[in-house]
This record gives sequence, structure tokens and C-alpha cells, in this order.
Amino acid sequence: MYRLHGPAQDLYEGISNLPIVSPHGHCDPAWFASDTPFANPAELLVIPDHYVFRMLYSQGVPLANLGIGAAGKTTKPRDVFRLFAAHWHLFLGTPSRLWINYVLRETLNISTPLSVETADQIYDQIAELLAQDDHRPRALFDRFGIEVLATTDGALDTLEHHQMIADSPWNGRVIPTFRPDSVLDPSDPDFVENVRHLGQLTGTDTGDFDGYLAALRKRRAFFAMMGTTATDHAIEVVHTEWIDHPEELYQKLCKSNATPADAAKFYGHMLIEMAQMSVEDGLTMQIHGGSRRNTNSGVLRDFGRDKGADIPVAVDWVRGLEALLNRVGNTPDFKLILFTLDETTYARELAPMAGHWPALRIGPPWWFHDSPAGIARYFDQVVETAGYHNLAGFNDDTRAFMSIPARHDLWRRGVADHLAQQMNRGYFGAKDAAELAQMLATDLARDAYGLAP
Amino acid sequence: MYRLHGPAQDLYEGISNLPIVSPHGHCDPAWFASDTPFANPAELLVIPDHYVFRMLYSQGVPLANLGIGAAGKTTKPRDVFRLFAAHWHLFLGTPSRLWINYVLRETLNISTPLSVETADQIYDQIAELLAQDDHRPRALFDRFGIEVLATTDGALDTLEHHQMIADSPWNGRVIPTFRPDSVLDPSDPDFVENVRHLGQLTGTDTGDFDGYLAALRKRRAFFAMMGTTATDHAIEVVHTEWIDHPEELYQKLCKSNATPADAAKFYGHMLIEMAQMSVEDGLTMQIHGGSRRNTNSGVLRDFGRDKGADIPVAVDWVRGLEALLNRVGNTPDFKLILFTLDETTYARELAPMAGHWPALRIGPPWWFHDSPAGIARYFDQVVETAGYHNLAGFNDDTRAFMSIPARHDLWRRGVADHLAQQMNRGYFGAKDAAELAQMLATDLARDAYGLAP
Amino acid sequence: MYRLHGPAQDLYEGISNLPIVSPHGHCDPAWFASDTPFANPAELLVIPDHYVFRMLYSQGVPLANLGIGAAGKTTKPRDVFRLFAAHWHLFLGTPSRLWINYVLRETLNISTPLSVETADQIYDQIAELLAQDDHRPRALFDRFGIEVLATTDGALDTLEHHQMIADSPWNGRVIPTFRPDSVLDPSDPDFVENVRHLGQLTGTDTGDFDGYLAALRKRRAFFAMMGTTATDHAIEVVHTEWIDHPEELYQKLCKSNATPADAAKFYGHMLIEMAQMSVEDGLTMQIHGGSRRNTNSGVLRDFGRDKGADIPVAVDWVRGLEALLNRVGNTPDFKLILFTLDETTYARELAPMAGHWPALRIGPPWWFHDSPAGIARYFDQVVETAGYHNLAGFNDDTRAFMSIPARHDLWRRGVADHLAQQMNRGYFGAKDAAELAQMLATDLARDAYGLAP
Repeated sequence: MYRLHGPAQDLYEGISNLPIVSPHGHCDPAWFASDTPFANPAELLVIPDHYVFRMLYSQGVPLANLGIGAAGKTTKPRDVFRLFAAHWHLFLGTPSRLWINYVLRETLNISTPLSVETADQIYDQIAELLAQDDHRPRALFDRFGIEVLATTDGALDTLEHHQMIADSPWNGRVIPTFRPDSVLDPSDPDFVENVRHLGQLTGTDTGDFDGYLAALRKRRAFFAMMGTTATDHAIEVVHTEWIDHPEELYQKLCKSNATPADAAKFYGHMLIEMAQMSVEDGLTMQIHGGSRRNTNSGVLRDFGRDKGADIPVAVDWVRGLEALLNRVGNTPDFKLILFTLDETTYARELAPMAGHWPALRIGPPWWFHDSPAGIARYFDQVVETAGYHNLAGFNDDTRAFMSIPARHDLWRRGVADHLAQQMNRGYFGAKDAAELAQMLATDLARDAYGLAP
Repeated sequence: MYRLHGPAQDLYEGISNLPIVSPHGHCDPAWFASDTPFANPAELLVIPDHYVFRMLYSQGVPLANLGIGAAGKTTKPRDVFRLFAAHWHLFLGTPSRLWINYVLRETLNISTPLSVETADQIYDQIAELLAQDDHRPRALFDRFGIEVLATTDGALDTLEHHQMIADSPWNGRVIPTFRPDSVLDPSDPDFVENVRHLGQLTGTDTGDFDGYLAALRKRRAFFAMMGTTATDHAIEVVHTEWIDHPEELYQKLCKSNATPADAAKFYGHMLIEMAQMSVEDGLTMQIHGGSRRNTNSGVLRDFGRDKGADIPVAVDWVRGLEALLNRVGNTPDFKLILFTLDETTYARELAPMAGHWPALRIGPPWWFHDSPAGIARYFDQVVETAGYHNLAGFNDDTRAFMSIPARHDLWRRGVADHLAQQMNRGYFGAKDAAELAQMLATDLARDAYGLAP
Repeated sequence: MYRLHGPAQDLYEGISNLPIVSPHGHCDPAWFASDTPFANPAELLVIPDHYVFRMLYSQGVPLANLGIGAAGKTTKPRDVFRLFAAHWHLFLGTPSRLWINYVLRETLNISTPLSVETADQIYDQIAELLAQDDHRPRALFDRFGIEVLATTDGALDTLEHHQMIADSPWNGRVIPTFRPDSVLDPSDPDFVENVRHLGQLTGTDTGDFDGYLAALRKRRAFFAMMGTTATDHAIEVVHTEWIDHPEELYQKLCKSNATPADAAKFYGHMLIEMAQMSVEDGLTMQIHGGSRRNTNSGVLRDFGRDKGADIPVAVDWVRGLEALLNRVGNTPDFKLILFTLDETTYARELAPMAGHWPALRIGPPWWFHDSPAGIARYFDQVVETAGYHNLAGFNDDTRAFMSIPARHDLWRRGVADHLAQQMNRGYFGAKDAAELAQMLATDLARDAYGLAP
């Protein structure tokens, strides 16, 4: 447990029970549409959590032995859980250990410490809980106090699970997020087919660039009608540029494979188009920049995407976003949230940029940096230049549903720790600190994503 | 207020009343030449302070409403001040809030906390003070205990205000700094005209490269005669290279618009020429590197330069300065002070370089990093490799005259905090710490800039 | 002394007397082969220590006055030591001061503080000690509790001193490390001659690429027979690429001077060949990346290499190692240890990479970062993502033999300080902390380098 002391503990207690606002993440809407019980402890805690299995893999544990990929299909869940427990020491000092301890103790009320000896016992305890009605997805969602949970959905997704949730008597708010990379990025091998599919879904002729834009507008409107308040883009190299006459390039890309340079140029233009559509339709725009995906080709081939081999690279936000910001960055109603894995850009780029451009907000510490020390570095490096009001609060960004309360709890502890240090340095008093704590726990996220409670 | 504890407080008290040495900044010498009262509280505290108005702009306040630019001319100062006060919460956690609190409480002796309710009352209190003789520029300069204040002046500046100060009975030491970018950088649209003007001012034919160098030497000598002890250069990309025969390039640049590559090459050469002239005439050389200027073209067009849209970018000091240092870096009498906004270069580049090259000194935390956490990171990252003697002390680098005591006070608190931590870790005792504190407060700056008291 | 408090002191005491495992450094094996006394205090503490003389040089002390280079040959050792003592204040706040204080007080039992007044007295005390049998190299090695000491040796080195040590009755374990840069890097002006020499030493025809590889394999086998467990590479720009048919390039490089692009390409391929040979023969591979060597051409010309002018530059480990890792990175038995001087890569690149790839381990803080604050930043930035088990423990990397206990002691204090903070934050308890302390002090290094005690 991330332990707090003195005034930090007081600040934490003031916010620990606030509702959970989760404006960005990767939970599967099907869980809440069907509300079927989670299958077993391994599929709940180990197999979907790339934070967990990447660490075991790094110490020589084969991914198939962890139930991953086609080769892992026959691995028994109990064996997966045992293997995880046998390597529990690897997680000393990591946020995964803090999160999982929280899930076991606070969320599942299991007091036995995890170890190779207790693995079977804990496995049975969890399995028993999962079989109970009050541990099905909707019941957990309600018990967790989730005010809103955003999923992440491709532009071509039918959102049928979101529709099922809307049609159900359950009142949980699960909303989609518009993630159009597959129809914007010509380096996607299926780009041409995806654009054709987009045309079909929207009943729009995407044969020319204007039709393509119209189809994108229609698809955004469909998502907005389904509850979406935000879009999301994941890019390795941050690049935007405005093309005055994109028709010719669009035609070229629709006919043949794009060169990397053409693809980068076109995507760089389309990010600006997306920003301009956000000015029109009010959807908050998110950019997750600087993750190099699938750096391990063998793991990609045998086990697929999102298997721990996405590694951060250095980012130049300043030059990369200049074209976009010079078109729409002065628009106060437009909100663009930036997420970085390159912490050097916190103080050098993001804080000065967010402290100037009306459109910008700095996203919370992302991925590897969603951790006690990562949160401390974030506050240390962004607040003095950006203040608190240019931050976007927290999001858990997880596909591990059970860890959501744990992650928000850890963030709230980090917030309390930071604010207590500021008080100790004399920057402000307890009243300001308590207001900032609530902002950072819930209000800034609601505001940045247009999510009124 | 930046609050100190125990030994840090003791160290601070030992240096808090030392004179202010301000070897680099952007105050207007006209203030001290004419000694007319400051106009009103808004023009004193808000309108000239880009740290302040950028933050309000980032949250949607139009710059014109803050009295900025042609469009802001008709805005009433009291309305500007009210608007500022109404957004005072935006500055929680920023050094601006610490500085302005210091100005109000310590410098102006106003005990009422700033808020939207007290804005008018505080405005009136400040306005009343500004009307008094003891709050005119020279009186404040004397009361602040300023030993020397350096302004920053273009190479073509006539220095008439400095001459007026010299001719006056007042004894305040206000000295110019030679900032020749406009006559060195061919990417300046007025470069050719500026060089012609330089020739006129110095009575020198700048028709060939030798004449151009001679004109620069004469202009430096004029500045030195007026009290200058340092030059300054502001560059985005740090690049130096030596050209054996620059005549041809010079002729080309004097005849036509420079390509970006030609301009970078020529300026890269001229930085070395400037360094060599510093070896001759003893002027300390400053380089402020890595700020990308005017990234917001709309704000530049409507409101001009220095409006909060200058954003740091990554810098390569090692390769960028290699050509310069290999010509003059082994000269102990030459002093070159480097300022960075890319904190990753503190430990990686600047400290190892300053810990080797006799010519180098590391400038204090600059701009966004002149803040409590910024100062802590600076000491944490430079001292172990560069020691203390390769640092250049402090400079406030401000155009906000009233904030000078506040900024030096905050630096001195940061110094005391750092040194007390070093003592607690057992690195040295109270006697060494007290000596280092005085060095960092005044002596290193005097030494680096050749400013004997 | 780096002072500890409370639980940190307890943790430190549990590991302070463990044996010293020194798997990477630059001590001269001749010292232990001949076991002749060290010449004098200046040659022991000042002249070989580039951490020390670079600092004096940075403040204007000529290198020749410090006994360095041909010009320094006639300088008297006592004068060198006096000059060093007269500049002792320059080291306030640096690890060099902590190390040297430790050497004087703990290792040499000299209680008089060093100063310009005590320089002669201390010089005499050290000189007297060095004349005694119990201060000869082997006796010190034994007294220091060194379990194993690895030297660094060129591929063409005959290892005659290692043979002499092996043939002697002394039981100290001094092992070579295989550093083949001179026969891998075509930008080395002696590359062609070095490869020819390699052929001679191994009795292998290096006229074609296969012969060249065979010669390298034989040389590795010879080193392994002499006790080597690791290789080492020092490169400025981290770059690897696989060439399917390298014969043509090899022939070109053997006939003429390489272009920089050819050299980079070939060396990038050879790093992968080396990694593949490590998979075969089990030698741990080390890469020290991102140091730009000999940036001061005047110092290089007059005083030679390793004179304080090697300066770190930014590194891209992700793209740079992608080709190598995609060939052998999934091999758990292969160990590749990465050392960086670009601390921005700790959290952004190295920790995520080591937390995924089975082959990777993160080396300890290197060079300028082997310091209290450097160690703290290291743990702060690597542990949350990489855990502890993907670290390679400590190595002192020194050519200053006397400083080895001091450096390991400082590391162990840094370990204890870090772990005590983790305990205070509630991440784990005293039992886990004590186990991690021992791992970090000795066990991880033994494991990463295959050095069973």
C-alpha cells in the first residue's frame, strides 16, 4: 500500500470516496452488455494485463505458459495463476504490485498475502467470488462507484454492445470513444478497405476527399449520438502539417500502397481535420504520442499486439503540433489533451504549451508513469509552469477492469502526497489544497472531457 | 511564501540581505533615465509580465482584455487588474504567485490577500504608492539594494538612456549588454539594412567581411565604454561552425535573401567570431539556447513578440558548440555562460562540459525553470559533476522590475534549501555551506560577469 | 561522508561488509601481476583520476602542472598533490570528494582533513603507507575483500599479466574482459592492421568475412579460457542493423578507408554478430552507449585520450537496438547489459525494454551518474517499470584502484537510502528490503556476469 503521512493522509481521506470518473480506458463494453461472470482468476488478473506478463516474460517465462496467444489456449488457468504467484517477487517496487495488492485486499477482501504457497488457496477464493452475482461486471461497476466509464472503439465499430447497455435496464454509464486511426493512417495495411467500409457504414461515397471528410463527420455524429464525448489518436511520431489541396494525395493513397512519407504527410493533415471537426462538434481530442508499437517482431507474429513490446521514444511536441495549433489552438472551446511517455517533455514542452494555448490540456501520467514516482515527477515538472487548471485530471487507461479502483486510489494518494508537500513548502494552505485535491480527483476530468455528473 | 525549515532558514538569513547583483535582464533603461513614476498597477504588474498573461490566455482570457497589443490600448488598467485578480487561482503552485505575493506583502507592504473581492482596494493602494516619490524607479532601485543592473540592448541601440543615467547625479549602476543578433543572423528580414546601419553608426565600410568584423569590434568597444561587461545571444538551434573563407558567403547574404541553411551556417560562424572577440576584449559571452520563438503566428500578428508563445525545444549543446569550444574553449580568461530550457542537458551535457572546459560556466535556471522545483532540479543535476565553482550564480532575467527582489529572494531560499539538504546528507558542514550560500547569492555572478562590487 | 538516518542506516549495516564484486572496471592487471608498490600519492590519487583533474582543468589549472602527458613528466608528484589540495574546495558537492575522503579516512586511516595547509603532511603519511608491504596491490586487494575484479582488455591484448597472476601463488581473482572495438569498428584508423593482427594471433586467415568471424570466435574462446565472463563495447551512436551478405562490405573496408556511413553500418552488423556469439559461448555482453569521445582536440593532441573531454550525448536505445534484439533478444540465456549517460532513457527506454526483453539488464548508474543524486534518480526512474530483477547490480568502472571500496560503499549507502524510502512509502517491509539490499550489493552483479562466488 502507498502509505501517506500527516496532512497527506487528511487530504486523501477527503477525496478517497469520491466517484470514479474514467474518461479513457480499454475495458470491453461486452462485459457490461452481457454481464456474464468473469471466467476465472487468471483471465481476470493475469492474462489481459500486459503490465504483468511482460515482467514475467522479461525474466524468461514463456508467454504461452501464461495462457497467451494461440499457443497458450491449452494452458490451464490455475497453472497460469500459480506461475504468476511464483514470480510475485519480480513486482517488488512496481505499481502492479500495489494495484494487485489493493485488488486482493480492498476489492476482493482477501487478507492472505500472495505467494507461491498461497496461490491455490487465493485462486479458489477468487473463483468462488467470481461465481457470485455481486461480482458480475455490472455489480462491480456499481460497487466501484463508477460515474462514467469510457471505452475505446474503432471508427468502424458498430457499438452494438453500447447499444445493448443503453437498451438494458441497468443505469451504468459506459460510453464509447472515437478512435479513427484505422481510417486515417494510410500506413495501416487495410487502410483502403477500411475507408471503403467507412463509406458503407455512413452511406457516403468516399471516392473523393470531400466525401471522405463527410463520412468521417457522419461517423463522429453517430458516436456522439451514442454518448461519445472524445476522440483518441495513438501515434509514434507526432507530426501535423496542413495540405492545401489534399485531393491528389488522397486519390494516390486510395489506389496504391502509401510510401511512409506519403502516409505521414496525409495522417499529419488528417489530425488537423480531426481537430477542426472537434471545433465543430465539440468532441474533446486526445493524442497519445511517442509509443513505438510492436518492437518485438517474434512476439507480434506469435502472440499478437499489446504484448509488452510497445516502447516509448523521444517526442518533439513543439514542432510536431505547430501546424495543428496554428489552425485551431487559439479556440478556447476546443480541448486537446496530450499524453506523453517522454517525461522530458513535461517541463520542456507540454507545460509551456499548455500554459499558453487555450486549447491544450496535459493528460495525466501515462502507462509506465502511472505510478507513485511517476505521479510525483509529473506534478514536480508540470505544475509550476502550467498550473493545475491546464491539467486533465486522471484517467486509468486500463483494460484490467478490476484494477480501476486501485488505480484511482493510487492517483488520489499521489495527489494528496503532492499537495501536502506544497503546503509544507508554504505555497498554499489547507483550504486551497482540499479544493485542488477534488479538482484533480474528479472535476478536471469531467471538465476536460465534457462529462457533467 | 517559499517556507524554509531549520538549517535552511539559518542559511537563508545569512544571505537574505546581501546586495542584488543582476547581471542579465530586460528592464527598460528609460525608467531610470527619466525616473518618471510607473503609470498604474496594471502596467506595473500585469501588462509587461508574459508569465502572467500567458496563463490567463491559456484559460481563454483574450489578450486585448489584458491591455495587450493595439487592440488592448483602450482597456482600462483597473479592468485589467480586476481580470487578473479574478483569475488569481490559476497561479496556485506557480512561481508567479510566489513572486507577486512577495511584491505585494514584502515590497509594497500590502497585507490584504489578493482576490476578486479585494482587487479594487489593492489597485488603489498600489496606485497611491506609485504616485509617491519613494516609489519612483531610482528610489526603488536604491531601496532594493541593487548593486548593478544589466539591461539587454540591441547592437544598433544608441544607449542614450544609459548616457542620461551616467550624466545624472544618481549613482545607480545600470549597464547595457551587447545583444547583436540582429546584425549577425541573416534570417532576420532586416539583416542587410541592420548591417548597413551598423556601418553608419561605427563609421566603417561593411562592404566586405573584414569591414563588417571591424564594425562589430568598434560597436563592442562603444558598449564596453558605456559599462557593458557581457554580450548575449538568443538562438533556437545551437550550432557553431568555422568557415575558413567567409567572404563569399557574406557577399551572398548582403545581396539577397539568405536560405535557412546559409543563414544557419553564417550565424554559426559568427558566434565563433564573437567568442574570439570576447577573448580579445574580455566581454563575457552568454548564449540562451533552445527557445523556439513566436510559435503562435496569430498572436504574433495581432500582439507582437514576447507574448507567451516562445516554447523550449530539445538542444544538443555538445555537437552544437564543438566548433566554438575547439577554437577558444581552452582559454581560461574567456567566459561563456550557457542557459538552457532543456533540463535534460543539465546532467547529460552542461555539467560534464563545464566540468572540463575552462571557458564554460552554467547559467542559473532560466525562465520556466526559475522556480522552487526548477532550482531544486538544477542543483540536483549540475552540482555533482560541475561543482559549484563552474556555476554563474543567479540572474533574474526579468522585464518586471518590481519582481527583482522577489526573484532573488526565491533563488536565495532555493540555495538555502539545497545547501541544508547537502548538510543533512553529510556532504559538508555549516561553514562550507555558508560560504557557498554567499557565492551563489552574489559572488559567482560578480565573477562570471566581471562585476567587481 | 554520505550520511544515513534510521532504517537506511540499519539496511546499510546489513550489507556494508559484504565482499566486493567488481565485474567491470579499468584497473591495470600489471599491478597485481608484479605487485610492486604504488609509486607515490599523486600517481595513486590524482594523475590517473580523470574525475579529479578535469575539475581542476575546468578552473584553469594546466594539465601539465598535474603531471599529465609528456609535458607533465617533469612535474614533481608532491607539487601535483599540493596543487590538488589547493583546489580541494572545487569538489564540494561532488562524489569525488566523498570518495577521496573515504579513501583517506577509512582506507588509509588518515584523520587530518585535507587542505592546502595539510597537503605536505598527508602526502608524507600516504607515501609512508605505500612503502609498506601491507599496502602493495595484492595486499590491498585482499584487505578490500574483493571477490572478483574484472579488467578491460583489447581483443589484441596478450593477457600476459593475467597469466602471471594465474601462475602466481596469490589467490586473488582478476579476470579480463573482451573489448573488441578496435577490430570491429572500421572508423578506427588502425582497423585493417588490427584485423590482420587478429588473424596472426589466432592463426586464422581473415581474408574473407567467414575467416574474420572465425578469428573473433577463437579470440573470445582464448579470453574465456583466461577467465573472461563478459565482453564490452563503447559506442557513441547506438546503431545496429543486420546485413544479409556482409562479404562485399568487408572486402571494401579491408582495402580502403571506410566512409563514416560504411563504418557505422558494418559496426552495427558486428554488434549483432557479437551478440550471436554470446548466445553461443555464454559471455555476457555490455554496451556503454552515448559517450562522445575526445571532444577537445587540443587536449587530445597534447595529452591523449581519457582526459575529461568525453561528453555524453542523447541516445535512442529503442530504434538503435531493434535489429539486434529482434535477432537474439528473446533468448533468456543471453545477457545484454546496457549502460547509459543519458538519464532520460532510464524511464523512457531502458526500463520498458528491460521489463520486456528476456536478454536485457540495466547497468548501474555510469560515470557522472555514479553519485548519491545519480543513484537516487536511477532507482526513482527504473524500478517502477523494470523491477529490481532486471538490474545488473553495481560496478565501479574505475581506473582508480584505491577508490573501489569507497565507490561500493557509496553505492551501498545509496541502495540503503532508496530501500528505506520505499519502506517508508509502504511498498514493502524490512525483510524484503534486506533481501533486495543484498541482491543490489552483490547477487545481481554475480548473476548478470556469470560470476559464482
